[in-house]
Parts: sequence; structure tokens; C-alpha cells
Amino acid sequence: MPHGPLMIIGGAEDKVRKPTILKHFVALSGGRDARIAVIPTASSLGREVVDVYDALFTKFGAARVDAVRPESREQAHDPALVKALDEATGVFMTGGNQLKLSSIVCGTPVGDAIVRAHERGAVVAGTSAGASIQSSHMVAFGVGGATPKQRMTQVAAGLGLVDAAVIDQHFDQRNRYGRLLMIVAQSPQLLGIGVDEDTCGLVEDVDGDLLMRVLGKGAVTIFDGSRMVSNAHEAKRSSPLLASGVVFHTLPEGAVFNLSTRTLVPQEPVVDAEDADELAEASRDLRELARDIAAADATPAAVARRLRKRRTPRSS
Amino acid sequence: MPHGPLMIIGGAEDKVRKPTILKHFVALSGGRDARIAVIPTASSLGREVVDVYDALFTKFGAARVDAVRPESREQAHDPALVKALDEATGVFMTGGNQLKLSSIVCGTPVGDAIVRAHERGAVVAGTSAGASIQSSHMVAFGVGGATPKQRMTQVAAGLGLVDAAVIDQHFDQRNRYGRLLMIVAQSPQLLGIGVDEDTCGLVEDVDGDLLMRVLGKGAVTIFDGSRMVSNAHEAKRSSPLLASGVVFHTLPEGAVFNLSTRTLVPQEPVVDAEDADELAEASRDLRELARDIAAADATPAAVARRLRKRRTPRSS
Repeated sequence: MPHGPLMIIGGAEDKVRKPTILKHFVALSGGRDARIAVIPTASSLGREVVDVYDALFTKFGAARVDAVRPESREQAHDPALVKALDEATGVFMTGGNQLKLSSIVCGTPVGDAIVRAHERGAVVAGTSAGASIQSSHMVAFGVGGATPKQRMTQVAAGLGLVDAAVIDQHFDQRNRYGRLLMIVAQSPQLLGIGVDEDTCGLVEDVDGDLLMRVLGKGAVTIFDGSRMVSNAHEAKRSSPLLASGVVFHTLPEGAVFNLSTRTLVPQEPVVDAEDADELAEASRDLRELARDIAAADATPAAVARRLRKRRTPRSS
Repeated sequence: MPHGPLMIIGGAEDKVRKPTILKHFVALSGGRDARIAVIPTASSLGREVVDVYDALFTKFGAARVDAVRPESREQAHDPALVKALDEATGVFMTGGNQLKLSSIVCGTPVGDAIVRAHERGAVVAGTSAGASIQSSHMVAFGVGGATPKQRMTQVAAGLGLVDAAVIDQHFDQRNRYGRLLMIVAQSPQLLGIGVDEDTCGLVEDVDGDLLMRVLGKGAVTIFDGSRMVSNAHEAKRSSPLLASGVVFHTLPEGAVFNLSTRTLVPQEPVVDAEDADELAEASRDLRELARDIAAADATPAAVARRLRKRRTPRSS
């Protein structure tokens, strides 16, 4: 069985007006058959956060929502929590403090059960802290700012659902370019993935390649340091870092990126219904005109009439 | 005669504690022989701003400081102002509103005299607004934010001292990644140059290539969209833009970037005096060890002693 989809959400996903991302999570988890485990450990308001997601996922049609809320590594050995994860079709990790989440669950039966859920095909989703923990390497904490500076952030170990990567969130809103770049400058084998608020990278295994499709209001930013030149091993104190030749992708909704080959997957342009009708008409008309010209049957008036009609939509 | 150096300063350059950049400007302009023209037109506090730079440049040894302060296109035809520019060895454009500066001086005798000063070898420097105006294309205004969005900024025409480029300033401090990326996504032939506060890109023509050396506290960020894929021609309203495959450089003090070939110029690593002594000693010792081994004269004790000494400096 192929591994399940991952949903890497940049925090502050819309829960009220246009909750596209959370609805998509329930649908992917099986809709009316969805059994969802919510892990609120990152949050200091665990109980209340579970209530919110329970209400939302139930409203979107999930059959069952369980709270899996270890608050210590000891509790992360509880067989009842492991059972809830083993039976889940979808796992959702909330926001909060990712270092609390990772230091409580990683390397425990609960942590292992999350990895197992992913391996058997369940959806694993997480927002903010719950996004960060999905990569092999995790931003533990650090300051904002666009320019990468030595020591501006700390790396800890994540769950490793996305290998050879480091995920950051609230990316645009908290200006986290610098800290993600610092990590990539120090560890160029890691792909840097920055996710904006109310935005999701949906990662699926397609024929052995990990493809990420972007959903939501913002963008996902990728830093690829494969061929970078950096001075990270010798930069002193908190000085700005040299990072030259980083390849950079900013990906809005609909864009698909191959995380395995680190390349954009070309997409057909989206044409709305009205534009499609206009284009089809213009296309018919041009074909007719070409025929008339070939038959030496195009009068100047006929050509002028056709060219007047052949406005391509939305050019201005 | 080769064109003069350009100093592209990202705003808020240190004037009191460590005024490296402004001192460098006076030195490049001729030190005791420097005749400097200050253009404060971008600022709404023109007179006071001139007083500050006059005091500074005089303190750093300049022979003479003139104010060139047109407040209208009409005044930018004043022969006295043109004369001050024609006699200057250094021109300094202050911060403020770059659209005020460009719309008053570009295409007037004062604007032409700035270009002429550059062409005859004088130093042309500018901070903030005075940096932006130096490129062929200029950020007129626009909002902050890391993610590029359609319509988040406006482009106007600059003086064109740096061709095929667009310069932005206060880059880290005001989070201007998004707007510079938006411009590069729409115009991939332009090199995007973002300069942090108290930081300077010093641009010089070396054998026909424009080389930029970074001075100061922050970094200069380069966006190269040469091989970018973008949806800028079809992105609607204010939606986030696709910009995939932008090559990205963040350059701290000492880094040198070739703006003509769009590549980093390799630099020798800077080794401080103490490290240099340690390295030299370790190097002598290793050579001796190699000779002893070749002569089959290395006892285990001698090898151990040498390896203990052979710590490379600062590794930890």
C-alpha cells in the first residue's frame, strides 16, 4: 500500500468563512467514513483546541473524532492513544509549540503510531507546529527577518514523514525567509519549505516521486541549496550569511512541485468557462479564415470582420 | 575614462558610531579634494538633511559640499545646479520619496548632469530613495510582505545608471521580498537587487564587467529570473504569483557579485592574524611529519604529539 497523503498547513487555516483546507482533509480521510485522531499536544490550550476541531470535522461529515493528547513522554506510551491512532483514517496535529510536540511524541509509541498511520495510507495533516514536525529536520524556534544570519534559529529532529527537508510556517506573515535560508545554508542537502498561513502543501507519492500540490490563499516557498555557495562554516557570531545560487520557487494555489526531483511540474493553464467559450469561438473563426485565404476567397471586408471578432479574451 | 563607482545604500546608514559607508564615499570622491553635491530632493526635510550630510562629509575631510535641491522640474533646469554637479567629484542623493526625486530630476538638465557625472568617473551614491533611482526600473511604491502578489507594487523609470535592474532598499527591515519578486516575475530580464539598511552595494566597472562589492552591516539580496517559470501574465487581482526557478543570492559584507554575468566572484577566505599564525604552525608541523614518515623516522609518540598540536583553528 502506498504511503498516505500529507497535509502541511502554514497555520491560521480558515475555519469559518472558506474552510477549504480542513474540508479537504476530512474528504481525503474518507468523508462519512473518516475516523480522525486530533493531537493537540503542541498547544497549551489542548482541550479547547480539540473541541474546535471536533466540532469542525464532525460538521464536515467525519464519522468519529478522537483526542490523542499526551502531555508527557510517559503518557505517549498509553496503549489507548496508540489504538486511536492505529484505527484512524486521518491524523491532525494542531498548532502551538513544535518543540513541545516533538519532544513529547517523537520516539514514543504515539510517535511511532503516527509514522505507521502514514505508512499504511492514512492522511497525516498538521498546521503550524503540526506542519513543522513532519519534516526530518525541524525549526525549533528562532527570530524573524528576511536576511539569513548565523545562529538566528535552532534545528531539532522532527517525525521525518518528509525526508531531507525542513518545514517552516506562518512564512510570509512572520517574515521567516532568513531563518529558513540559514538552515539551508548550513545544511544544503535539506530542501527548505516555507508555508504561508491558510495555505497547504498536499504531498502525495505518485509513482515513487513525492509531488506537492498547493491549496489555499497564500504560497509555498521552496529553497533548493543543491548548488549553493555558502560561508556558513566560517561566519562568525550573528553575522549575515553568504548564500549564493540558491534556487527559489514561490508556488501559489494549483502549482505542483516535485519534491523528489526539485522541479516544478508543468500544469495546463486554468481557463474559466466564459474565456473558454470566447477562445473556442475565436479558434473556429481563425480556422475558417485560414480556409478562405487558402481558397483565395478572403475579401478585405471578410478579413476585417473576422479580425474584429478575434479578440483574445482578457488581453488589455 | 571608465564610468565612476556607484554606491547603492539601503537606507539608515550609520552616521554616528561606525559611519563606514559614508566615510568610504568621501574617500572614493577624493578625500581632501572631494567636491560633493548633495541632492536632497527626495526628502520633505531637504534643508535639514543637507545640513546633516554637509556636517558629516566636511568632518570626513571633503573640500566642499554643495546642495543641489530642485523642488520642481522647472528648478531642475537651473544652470547653477547643473554647474555644481558638473564640478562634483561625488554626488550623494538622500532618502525620502523616490518618485518625488525621479519625477523632478529624470529627463531634466539636473538628471542629465548626474548621468554625465557617472560617465566621467565621479562617484554617484544614494541611500534609500537615492538608491532606488539608480536602476533603469524603479520601485515607485508598494506594500511589504514576503510572498509576491499581483499588483502589490508599481514600477516607474529610474536614472538607469544600473541597466536592466530594479533596486529595492530597507530590504530586510521592511520585508520587501514579495514586491521585488513580483517585479522580477513580471520582468525576468531585470535583475532584482534588494539592499538592507546600513549596507551598500559598491558597483564598479572592471574590464567591462559590473562588479558589486558589499559593505556594511546587512546583506544584499539578488533575484535572477533568467530561467524562471511564472504565471504573471495571467494571475488575477492580487493573487500570489508563481515564480519557480528564480536563482537567489544573499551577499554579506565582503562578497563580490558580477552583475553582468550574474555570478558570485570567488573570494579568498578572510583569516584573522591569530588564526593565520596557528595555521602556519600547523602547516609546518604537518610538512615535518610527512618528511619523517617518508624517512621511516616517525615514532608513534612523535606522531601523537604532532596530531595533538595540529588542531585547525576554531573547529569545535
